[in-house]
Amino acid sequence: MIRLGILISGSGTNLQAIIDAIEADTLDVNIALVVSSRPDAYGLTRAEAGGIPTLALTKSDYEYPIAADERIARALQLAGVDYVVMAGYMRKVCAPLLTAFPQRIINIHPALLPSFVGAHAIADAFAYGVKLTGVTVHLANEEYDRGPIIAQRAVEVEEADTLETLEQKIHAVEHVLYPEVLQLLAQGRVRIADDGRVAIL
Amino acid sequence: MIRLGILISGSGTNLQAIIDAIEADTLDVNIALVVSSRPDAYGLTRAEAGGIPTLALTKSDYEYPIAADERIARALQLAGVDYVVMAGYMRKVCAPLLTAFPQRIINIHPALLPSFVGAHAIADAFAYGVKLTGVTVHLANEEYDRGPIIAQRAVEVEEADTLETLEQKIHAVEHVLYPEVLQLLAQGRVRIADDGRVAIL
Repeated sequence: MIRLGILISGSGTNLQAIIDAIEADTLDVNIALVVSSRPDAYGLTRAEAGGIPTLALTKSDYEYPIAADERIARALQLAGVDYVVMAGYMRKVCAPLLTAFPQRIINIHPALLPSFVGAHAIADAFAYGVKLTGVTVHLANEEYDRGPIIAQRAVEVEEADTLETLEQKIHAVEHVLYPEVLQLLAQGRVRIADDGRVAIL
Repeated sequence: MIRLGILISGSGTNLQAIIDAIEADTLDVNIALVVSSRPDAYGLTRAEAGGIPTLALTKSDYEYPIAADERIARALQLAGVDYVVMAGYMRKVCAPLLTAFPQRIINIHPALLPSFVGAHAIADAFAYGVKLTGVTVHLANEEYDRGPIIAQRAVEVEEADTLETLEQKIHAVEHVLYPEVLQLLAQGRVRIADDGRVAIL
């Protein structure tokens, strides 16, 4: 069974969706370690409730981002992690992690990339006035939000939507799509070519 | 019944989809004039077969783009056109047309804007490796491919797709979506605010 390391910074709702899918037997993975960039992230409580080992870094750890990522990479490797899953992790992933897990760091973005990169994707899409937005699961690489795309799912922006209802709809799709994509990984059905192009088998 | 002026440059498959929808009684508009940027566009033949008046410009007309657009705008106004519909029109729409038909020039783009602007949207999306692309109907304004969005529809990029099959799928969606959006216009269900924001009633 593949082993995941999950990176969080906050409430960990995507982490919870992954835990729930494992408990529902729709996702065949082990979560080997949850790493939080903040010691007070509620996601840590969720991990502990699931009996999952955790590592929490502090703001001062990130004063030296390379050293922080070296420490995270070492912990993930010691835990025998196959794939690193970013789940609301609000720090940039630096060279030590990218080198330790080449083409094996996965992120989820609340828009249809390459539209609306960055930290305010839902609000940006809503302000632009798109009628269709969505969720993208992709590989993280040195170009933020620009890594190879594994899966995308559309979300309609309806007339009645406010930014808040759109956020809810997008997060709901994230919580379905992320476990689905991880299950494809678990089944060996995601083929990542050397050029980064992704095929689903 | 609203009157459309349709701008084409080539084979006119979107024009044909609009003509077919009118004949099938699913689209309640009159096509008052078809304007082609090329005298040899096959779309002119389609228009003539449908008994629709045509105006064909030549390459030399576009040596003076402002004068060309003044001439087009005048012809459209004389024909009593309410909305101008770009259907594979490969020329930029300039100030005289934008001024004559403010917020009333509609374009269709073979991608989910704001992703993949420009003239090679399908190929660009395919090369990027997106798993979801689609079609956008939007208002044309001075910023090309950046006008307010009226409607969007998704198209999945499947593993078996080649650029050619993806092009076919996207064009098939265009031929459904464009008449649908024009029917919303015909029914007065597209509200365009002064700031350009579009609501479907």
